[in-house]
Formats: sequence, structure tokens, C-alpha cells
Amino acid sequence: MPAQDPVAIQDHYPDEFAVCYGCGRLNTHGLHVRSVQEGGESVARITPRPEHTGIAGFVYGGLIASLVDCHGIGAAAAAAELAEGRAVGDAPAPRFVTASLQVDFVAPTPLGPPLEVRARIVEATARKAIVAVSVIAAGVTTATGRVIAVRIPASMMNG
Amino acid sequence: MPAQDPVAIQDHYPDEFAVCYGCGRLNTHGLHVRSVQEGGESVARITPRPEHTGIAGFVYGGLIASLVDCHGIGAAAAAAELAEGRAVGDAPAPRFVTASLQVDFVAPTPLGPPLEVRARIVEATARKAIVAVSVIAAGVTTATGRVIAVRIPASMMNG
Repeated sequence: MPAQDPVAIQDHYPDEFAVCYGCGRLNTHGLHVRSVQEGGESVARITPRPEHTGIAGFVYGGLIASLVDCHGIGAAAAAAELAEGRAVGDAPAPRFVTASLQVDFVAPTPLGPPLEVRARIVEATARKAIVAVSVIAAGVTTATGRVIAVRIPASMMNG
Repeated sequence: MPAQDPVAIQDHYPDEFAVCYGCGRLNTHGLHVRSVQEGGESVARITPRPEHTGIAGFVYGGLIASLVDCHGIGAAAAAAELAEGRAVGDAPAPRFVTASLQVDFVAPTPLGPPLEVRARIVEATARKAIVAVSVIAAGVTTATGRVIAVRIPASMMNG
């Protein structure tokens, strides 16, 4: 587990659920999205690599979709923790997966500055959450998205 | 340009638009999505790398979103070529970018087999297309998506 502060929900996924290319701390090739709680929202900050370009000078849309996806899932997991009266890190984190992902690219995202990805729970039950996500570059919202997150089904636990 | 057959629309993007992480032939770190025309649809085939895992044994959703995105864009570009009476490869390909991306993950996608990504134009004008995309693994459709593709705006051509 990384010794970084503040605590991210992904630091507390059980090892077997911590291999995701987008947010798994055990995926050595991955993006390592880390979602932390700030004032009722989940926030992730990440600087794309130079190769994460789409059109020259701008961030690849697939990377933005990946950030929306993993951070939305992290926010859903954190919300489930909080709803059960625990703080993030009190117990192994619940693992959600993505049922549906929507991203609207509202402005080109410049490649270079760190991106801030903010997630807000729109609605949630113990088994499902709808999460609204924004991607912000240099103070400008460049993409908005929505993730429908569901608790991991039994069919995905024997991979 | 790769010497592969059959011809992919991405082989014919002008060099300055061929750096995309998802589909740029000049991005040495990228995924190299190649979209070819088959019987009225565009088809891309790609085998995810071992690190492209989400949950162990299954493909990362962000990769699936990336494939839907780049292949949808490629299909839109190919459709624009065909609508103007050219075949893919007759001229430098038009470049579209993503306005909106939707992906529904209808079944877990096994990590291992090659994926087939199929795109069908739902509607198109010279400047915009709506593209329906399916991701198929071992004969099973595991994700469906929709891309709204628009001709690259002037604001993205000075990156």
C-alpha cells in the first residue's frame, strides 16, 4: 500500500481487487487513480503521461473516460463505506464495477497540467450508485460524465 | 504507415493527426486501433495486453471505452470518405473527434481472447456522425456503446 496521504479508497481495496489498470495499486503499468474524500465529494488528481495525447496538445479522450470510470467507481465505494458508518480505511473497501459510463467532452483538455477529477453521488443504495463526475484542467471543466456503479457480481469474482 | 492489409482509415490520417494514444500509428506507446471496412460496417480487432485488466481475468472498462471511442471515430471518418465518393486510402482521411461517449457493459469481457469491435453508422452528415459500437469477445457481445463524432474544430488544430 502506498504511504501517501490523504487516504484513498483504492488503498483499501483487497489485494485481489487491486489489479485494475486504472486504479489498482498492484498494477505496475497502470494509471493509479487515487480517490480521496474532500468536503462531501471524491477528488482524484492525476497528470497524464506525454503519450496520453489524442490530438497533439490535448488529452486522449479514452484516458479521460478511464479517469471518469475509475474515479466514479472509487466514489461509489467510498460512499458505501460512509453509508455504513465507517471512514475510508476502517475496513477493506467494497468493490464496485461499472455498468454504464457516459462522458461528454465539453472542451478540449490541454495535455500538461494536472487534472482534477471530482465525483458527486447522485443516488446510492448498498448495491448501486449513480455518480456524476467532472474533469477540470487549469480551472476549466473540460468533461462531464456519469457512472452507474454496481457491487461486483459473483460472476466476476473467480477471474 | 504500416504495410498491413486490409486498409484501415487510421493508416490515412495525416501525420499531425496520427499521434492518438488509442489509434495513432505514430504513438509508439499506444493501442493502435485499426478500423477496416467490412460489409457496410467498420471492424477493429485487438488483443488487450495482460496489464489491461480490471477485475482479475476481465478486461479493464476504460480500455473498452477507449476502443469504442477510437473505433467509433474511425468509423465516422471512413463514412465521411465513402459519402464523398472515395474509398478509404484514396485521400488523407478526415479527422473527427469525440463529442460524447456512452458505454454499457452488458457482460464481463474475458481478458485473453482477441476482441472484435464493430461500428455501424446510425446517422451522419459531413460534420457529425452518431455511431453504434459493439464489443465482442469469443462470440459474445460484452459491451455496447455510442459515439457522437464531430469534425475536428479549429480550436484543436494548433495543439
